[in-house]
Amino acid sequence: MTTPDPLSIDAFRDAGHALIDWLADFHAGIAYRPIRPDVAPGEIRSRLPAAAPEEPEPFGSLLADLDDVVVPGLLQWQHPGWFGYFPSNTSPASILGELASAGLGVQGMLWATSPAATEIESHVLDWLVDLMGLPATWRVDQGPGGGVIQMSASDSTHTAHVVARDIATRDGAATDDVVAYASAQAHSSVEKGARVAGYRHVRLVEVDGVQALRPQALAAAIASDLAAGLRPAIVTSAIGTTGTAAVDPVAAIADLAVEHGLWHHVDAAYAGSAMLCEEFRHHQVGVDRVDSYTWNPHKWLFTNFDCSVFWVADRAPLIRALSILPPYLRNAASDAGEVVDYRDWHVPLGRRFRALKLWWVLRSFGAADLRLRIREHVRLARELADRIEAHPNLRVVSPVHFGLVCFEHADGDAATDRVAAAVNLDPGLYVTPSVLDDRHIIRVAIGQARTTAHDTDRLWAVINATA
Amino acid sequence: MTTPDPLSIDAFRDAGHALIDWLADFHAGIAYRPIRPDVAPGEIRSRLPAAAPEEPEPFGSLLADLDDVVVPGLLQWQHPGWFGYFPSNTSPASILGELASAGLGVQGMLWATSPAATEIESHVLDWLVDLMGLPATWRVDQGPGGGVIQMSASDSTHTAHVVARDIATRDGAATDDVVAYASAQAHSSVEKGARVAGYRHVRLVEVDGVQALRPQALAAAIASDLAAGLRPAIVTSAIGTTGTAAVDPVAAIADLAVEHGLWHHVDAAYAGSAMLCEEFRHHQVGVDRVDSYTWNPHKWLFTNFDCSVFWVADRAPLIRALSILPPYLRNAASDAGEVVDYRDWHVPLGRRFRALKLWWVLRSFGAADLRLRIREHVRLARELADRIEAHPNLRVVSPVHFGLVCFEHADGDAATDRVAAAVNLDPGLYVTPSVLDDRHIIRVAIGQARTTAHDTDRLWAVINATA
Repeated sequence: MTTPDPLSIDAFRDAGHALIDWLADFHAGIAYRPIRPDVAPGEIRSRLPAAAPEEPEPFGSLLADLDDVVVPGLLQWQHPGWFGYFPSNTSPASILGELASAGLGVQGMLWATSPAATEIESHVLDWLVDLMGLPATWRVDQGPGGGVIQMSASDSTHTAHVVARDIATRDGAATDDVVAYASAQAHSSVEKGARVAGYRHVRLVEVDGVQALRPQALAAAIASDLAAGLRPAIVTSAIGTTGTAAVDPVAAIADLAVEHGLWHHVDAAYAGSAMLCEEFRHHQVGVDRVDSYTWNPHKWLFTNFDCSVFWVADRAPLIRALSILPPYLRNAASDAGEVVDYRDWHVPLGRRFRALKLWWVLRSFGAADLRLRIREHVRLARELADRIEAHPNLRVVSPVHFGLVCFEHADGDAATDRVAAAVNLDPGLYVTPSVLDDRHIIRVAIGQARTTAHDTDRLWAVINATA
Repeated sequence: MTTPDPLSIDAFRDAGHALIDWLADFHAGIAYRPIRPDVAPGEIRSRLPAAAPEEPEPFGSLLADLDDVVVPGLLQWQHPGWFGYFPSNTSPASILGELASAGLGVQGMLWATSPAATEIESHVLDWLVDLMGLPATWRVDQGPGGGVIQMSASDSTHTAHVVARDIATRDGAATDDVVAYASAQAHSSVEKGARVAGYRHVRLVEVDGVQALRPQALAAAIASDLAAGLRPAIVTSAIGTTGTAAVDPVAAIADLAVEHGLWHHVDAAYAGSAMLCEEFRHHQVGVDRVDSYTWNPHKWLFTNFDCSVFWVADRAPLIRALSILPPYLRNAASDAGEVVDYRDWHVPLGRRFRALKLWWVLRSFGAADLRLRIREHVRLARELADRIEAHPNLRVVSPVHFGLVCFEHADGDAATDRVAAAVNLDPGLYVTPSVLDDRHIIRVAIGQARTTAHDTDRLWAVINATA
């Protein structure tokens, strides 16, 4: 051929080595790049050709565009000065796990279409049940529960609402009468998942002074809905809200959920990672009486997005709500009921081999090292909170249970905004400004894989100088 | 440190080079591997340690397990003798695009959280609107439509049902009264997506002799539901069903959808790739009057799973149904309405940079070469169909519009099953047995990236020898 063969294995090998070196250099130098891109809306598009190329381009052009177009247009989530949103960590083992998964190119929709992909996923999630102190019956090999990897906590939370709706309307109750509950501090994915699942009634229940759901308010809301002839179906407890990493009283909510027959879903998307350490597990007391639990290793467990775990205490109602079996998916292993077919555990049919990277992360770090890293991030968060509390003009606005510190300036919103702006003007730091109870606050999420005391010291220096 | 540092960049570099070589060797040798794994349920798990490791393992152990545990437990979807299900292709550019995306580790939920990820996605999907002969108003830069990458066609189809339900119930109509329509040959994701979205009424409408939806039957079903006081909300047309790659009459269905105010969704998950070639576009006549369209580059366009495109003719009702804005996601660019925030275009919030691999595939192949490859697969399919038709004991059971050939043995199910079994006993071939109108058939999907006439000749030799 006169043009390059896009399927050439030799060319893949050369390009692959070049990209590995590029990525190694990228990570080695990321601390010296600005975290924030300096681009206006439409600027990236304006650098791209108006039409797709008719003729092939060599890999060198693609790689050059990483430097020229892509990287300057990205917020650098892997920068050690990343304190924004929540972390969205990568790590060498995880990146290479994604590469291996892409290279193998298998489809794990059924056990039969990739037995190893299914069994490694079940096995690794069973490992994690034990590592995180979750009920042993959530292990798929000890049943009746089990875990599955979904794309995001939003997907898992949406799925929980679908299952709860299915249960609540099996007796013919109207879909329009089902009600979902969560705290006023619940992540937007709870309201979104409920709306998408067809809930017209979503009650965002009052929280207390530490942004935790008030069980009495939940009880009152349920009673009021029952009196109105509605059908309470599901309540979501947060272990680590997105706003302030607040923790809802799971056990007290479980009492109400059990009493009223509600599906009880736990959103531990961020803070689930802390459960690897026994000292944080008091935050999940009551989890033995919940129905489902979502946690994102792709936040704080050094595993690339997407990797969100969804556990159910009983897989039967999940599969009942989601299973539809056309003839081209029938096979002997499934018909015999001997295997897990993950297509019945979520909305999508196709699925890539995401368990591989999670398996590789657990093996390349080892559980002991993962605990040390989680603890160090929490220690740094508490240290920052102590500095803030000791400052005459600053105050921490919520308990620091994990790696998230939320604070404000005593002089009000404008002063808080000035601190946030000063931090975000620093090319090596990034925080997320937010709002709590109509007051401006600053969220500092400490948990990026490469963040050390050096970075939190830099952050504190800017805060201190501005405050 | 005495133990390996799991974040070491030098170790990443070494391990990355080793994995690239391993993958190059894997692809170079895949034609000599058995397609089907020889494993019993539970066998893979039995080879894994009972508990997660406390201490780190070196990368060499992980790589060794690819050979010892993983690969022997996988169905080899990338084998050139793959004729099962539909193809789920990788290619060098796509695998490396996934690697780059994993290595960059950015989150594209908002424009502001990764401008380049958002703009490259919009730009590449706009390119594809033109390449596939779709309405120019589906380009996000020409509006009011636009495209977004979702995980799977199931997700897109589910989303279409959510939007249609939202529209149909805005006047207060009961959710339990909304009705979804599709043909009896529609993919299971249509019924699943509808059920998940809360539709109690899903009508799988009668098909004609070539497995295409009968518009008269659809009209009758709508009339009957209207007479019963129900609320017809959405119809899905298939361009290339999963069963037989049948094509529904999109234009005739559009007449009915427009007349009755139904959302009209098109499922071109598999066959959308053929629309790069003008000679196949007669199959999508009428697409200028539909509301949404899903297509999977991860099937037949050499792009790794997951990469499913969802286009809408008007993005406003989609965003209205899915947008929820908490304070920690507010930002100046979004507030100004100048940017696309893809979190409002699907259920998940977080999103990885999937457009990168699609961009790289288009550039490394070039559109001209992609068309040649699609045409060659279809030519091979027609050649196989001709051989089957010329055989006294075999017959093709449905039109060969694209790369899928469905056939049966004239002596009935047992004889058809014998042919399927003979093919699947060959370690270098794989087909999917299925059922059509209660008769056993064999599906042969020609479209694996490395499949050539050599492979279809091998397939035909086994079929011919058995039939």
